[in-house]
Amino acid sequence: MNLTATSPSAEIDSDLHVDARLWAGINPEPARRLLLAALKSFASRGFHGTTTREIALLAGVSSAGLYTHYRSKHDLLFQISRASHEFVLRELQKEFVIEGTPTQRLVRLVRAFTAFHATHHTAARVAQYELRSLLPDHFAVIVNVRDATEKVVREAIRLGVVSREFDVDDVDTTTVAVLSLGIDVARWFNPSGPLTPVQLGDRYAGLALRLVHGAAPAKSVNSSRTETGLAS
Amino acid sequence: MNLTATSPSAEIDSDLHVDARLWAGINPEPARRLLLAALKSFASRGFHGTTTREIALLAGVSSAGLYTHYRSKHDLLFQISRASHEFVLRELQKEFVIEGTPTQRLVRLVRAFTAFHATHHTAARVAQYELRSLLPDHFAVIVNVRDATEKVVREAIRLGVVSREFDVDDVDTTTVAVLSLGIDVARWFNPSGPLTPVQLGDRYAGLALRLVHGAAPAKSVNSSRTETGLAS
Repeated sequence: MNLTATSPSAEIDSDLHVDARLWAGINPEPARRLLLAALKSFASRGFHGTTTREIALLAGVSSAGLYTHYRSKHDLLFQISRASHEFVLRELQKEFVIEGTPTQRLVRLVRAFTAFHATHHTAARVAQYELRSLLPDHFAVIVNVRDATEKVVREAIRLGVVSREFDVDDVDTTTVAVLSLGIDVARWFNPSGPLTPVQLGDRYAGLALRLVHGAAPAKSVNSSRTETGLAS
Repeated sequence: MNLTATSPSAEIDSDLHVDARLWAGINPEPARRLLLAALKSFASRGFHGTTTREIALLAGVSSAGLYTHYRSKHDLLFQISRASHEFVLRELQKEFVIEGTPTQRLVRLVRAFTAFHATHHTAARVAQYELRSLLPDHFAVIVNVRDATEKVVREAIRLGVVSREFDVDDVDTTTVAVLSLGIDVARWFNPSGPLTPVQLGDRYAGLALRLVHGAAPAKSVNSSRTETGLAS
């Protein structure tokens, strides 16, 4: 396992079609073809490095044809980002409402969140990296979905703290760390690596449990702080 | 604290000058000015969305002037990436050789790694996001530095396992998770957020200790596996 698994020339479209549910709302078929062409282009050359002409060409659609389905290149990015963000929110919400202990719920959430970012690493990477390229109105819509996603994980951790099943110093930092671990999978995951998305999801669920269960020995942190003169 | 702290229009050059040591090797002054202009442009429009003409203009240097310092836009990206990657490697190597227990060493490494990615979030983000834009020869150089960085953290974790101070299921996955948490800070860190880079480094050091110290309760993971039918 390596954090630099993908070389510059590596194939980037391995996950474009892996879970048809992700793009199920994008119809008719030429609209979906254009969206996948945009995704592939944004992933390899970035949003600002891609033209609508190149997207239309890759999709085998005329430029005029592109504009019957999308208003602009920004619109294409928004649809990619919205489909990805709403898909992962729905997945987490489904896991959240299943009966179980806080530990069981967190395991299910982290497993689903990690597996999504591994399986759909190209879509997730574009959704994350190009957040700043969204138009302000589009950005506001995506931020709402992201806030809702973050809220599901925070609430799962909070409920475990309330029931004393979890022992967490700071719910906010732990929430950010759990989400961050999952999101960053989209950056480094390599489908030809040693772990499948589901296997990685299981390992990361185990790590998330360590974050909420295991109390760090304050003694060691403090002694180290003193040692490096960083005591506050 | 929020994983979507930066709006599309937010200022992106807040960290361009924060630690002069990062760019200390980039001389003379016009070369450094060009490098910072390239960094700012790549961060806002991506490598492929930026021209050398725009970089020269932003740096207040003629296009001909740019080519006396850099061979190409790829060269600029390589110098940014190399400076960032080599800086963080040196920081970790310095921390690694200081005497201490495995716990103290890991705390120092995670604190330095996290604080770097928070302080230099723009440089770190460009270095990470544009890895695929590097030319193959440049990419090979950077991969060597990344492998060396990963090796420092893996060795710190391995030594703690050998001394039985750490209890880790899988050194590789834990190494990836510790590095991934730190790297992803560059994506979401907001200098106007509640935590300074050093404070975040302290919190993340505490979380890293949980990852290597706290044994996840196998019972809960297993019962959840059975429940969702994912038992292998």
